[in-house]
Amino acid sequence: MVACNRFAGVLQIPKKIMTLTIVGTMAFDAIETPFAKTDKTVGGSGTYGAFAASNFTHDINQVSIIGGDFPKEILQELNRRGVHTDGVEMIKDKKSFFWSGKYRSDMNTRDTLITDLNVLADFNPVIPESYQNTDYLFLANMDPHIQKSVILQLKKRPKFILLDTMNFWMGATLPALHEVLQLTDALVVNDEEARQLSGEYSIAKAAKKILHMGPQYLIIKKGEHGALLFYGEQAFFAPALLLDDVYDPTGAGDSFAGGFIGYLSKTDDISFENLKTAIIMGSVTASFCVEELGTQKLRSITQNDIQLRTKKFLELTRFEIPQC
Amino acid sequence: MVACNRFAGVLQIPKKIMTLTIVGTMAFDAIETPFAKTDKTVGGSGTYGAFAASNFTHDINQVSIIGGDFPKEILQELNRRGVHTDGVEMIKDKKSFFWSGKYRSDMNTRDTLITDLNVLADFNPVIPESYQNTDYLFLANMDPHIQKSVILQLKKRPKFILLDTMNFWMGATLPALHEVLQLTDALVVNDEEARQLSGEYSIAKAAKKILHMGPQYLIIKKGEHGALLFYGEQAFFAPALLLDDVYDPTGAGDSFAGGFIGYLSKTDDISFENLKTAIIMGSVTASFCVEELGTQKLRSITQNDIQLRTKKFLELTRFEIPQC
Repeated sequence: MVACNRFAGVLQIPKKIMTLTIVGTMAFDAIETPFAKTDKTVGGSGTYGAFAASNFTHDINQVSIIGGDFPKEILQELNRRGVHTDGVEMIKDKKSFFWSGKYRSDMNTRDTLITDLNVLADFNPVIPESYQNTDYLFLANMDPHIQKSVILQLKKRPKFILLDTMNFWMGATLPALHEVLQLTDALVVNDEEARQLSGEYSIAKAAKKILHMGPQYLIIKKGEHGALLFYGEQAFFAPALLLDDVYDPTGAGDSFAGGFIGYLSKTDDISFENLKTAIIMGSVTASFCVEELGTQKLRSITQNDIQLRTKKFLELTRFEIPQC
Repeated sequence: MVACNRFAGVLQIPKKIMTLTIVGTMAFDAIETPFAKTDKTVGGSGTYGAFAASNFTHDINQVSIIGGDFPKEILQELNRRGVHTDGVEMIKDKKSFFWSGKYRSDMNTRDTLITDLNVLADFNPVIPESYQNTDYLFLANMDPHIQKSVILQLKKRPKFILLDTMNFWMGATLPALHEVLQLTDALVVNDEEARQLSGEYSIAKAAKKILHMGPQYLIIKKGEHGALLFYGEQAFFAPALLLDDVYDPTGAGDSFAGGFIGYLSKTDDISFENLKTAIIMGSVTASFCVEELGTQKLRSITQNDIQLRTKKFLELTRFEIPQC
């Protein structure tokens, strides 16, 4: 596959394809929303992240842990999409991580009903030799000790490390979280998590404090209110698409992150300008994710779907300022 | 004053200056926020609206009611800014409308402590003859019966009527609100009010329903999360500026509406494209309003301030999409 050449008419020199490594959970979810219900669907941050990213790039190294019950067809489908699963450890006689949740009628709040760690209790990822020299790294939400151990296992530091985390780790494991923040390029959290991590209510002030904790980029997800990207004194805002109905919000954040890092890996450009576009691509990906149950929609969208929806984001945000 | 000519090099034909009429309250407020406190400052939707709009246009007809205690200097200052006050009825032996409120630490919720209607109990505006032939009309939040009476007093229908309302009128006076909605071009409400008026939780669905109630444009204010403009099947999103501190949110909504209609009146262009820019100008105006207590900041900003802040909105929202 020849990467996109932005200079039409110039001799096309195929770009080196960048390698993206994703570390996250692969699991089963039971989900209930006002519009949909399933007792068992494939989920997990790594699964959503990989399906999302594989809409943009096709050299993805997956790191995760699964039980003997995890469907082979999903692994095969990921392989067909360019996701290598050598780093997915399978423990045959144990069960995969299981999460069950129910969304309230506003779709913004959910109650966790069941969390069965199963194989995840023993997750201590070993990075395969074939995964060394990865260019981009996405560490999905998990214990910051594990996130740090992954970074330290890589002999060559990736060009760009994206870290996800959550309020839970800002309690007991805060020192470890601060250590791993020092090692990353970008942090992705939601607005409440940004407030908790910084101790500041004002999002502008929270961003300034977090950018002093290590990462040079900060992404703040605001759900239906869009997402913010901070870099030094600069900020960029991407709205969320206005959807008639959100069918299932599960995995929206992981799809956002997966689309974002997938686009970065595809374009291999970590400038603020390109990160803005990557934020839009993350928003586009998340907007598809919530339209069907589980990972279904992420696995069926086409390049044309992505282009059409990207245009919608342009239409939603463009305005003219008269020159006088 | 020669109005802006967008076509440089073309012979400049001075545009006819449009007339804007604003109907709203002029009052005293007592405000307490975590950062500021005042026992008495000039406020009211009409006051905020007029100060905001007069940053864009200078032929404004104010309609309101005040007591003998309302400061003459404020009326004189409004006059100097091009706001005619013939339609401001003064009842010498009565007091002006008084509102007192306290903001909680998140600045998004406030508790009303005192509402003394005073002269407002008798508000039954009579449109002066000199106000006839108004081109633009802003009906700030008030009893929809009064809003309707104002429209019916105008012998020539204005080019554009902007209506503000609130949840209170969606109760007992809902039929009157529906009648006045039939007579307006644009409605401005916040997200909760849009949900209440439409009975739809989804903002996209709420907008579709409200656009069937009469107005061809709908503006939904989302406070710190920005504002949305709906027109037919199209939507536009303007973010709110990221401010380190919000000093006093009072009047932000009225300043937004005043800046919006002031810019429309200045440019005399009610296309969807120009309304997008007007939404940005409303957001710019509101972002100034909240930076100081009461109307102070609105009364001291310059054209240069507005231009610089407009550029910040551009920077906050611009992104590039590669053509491949």
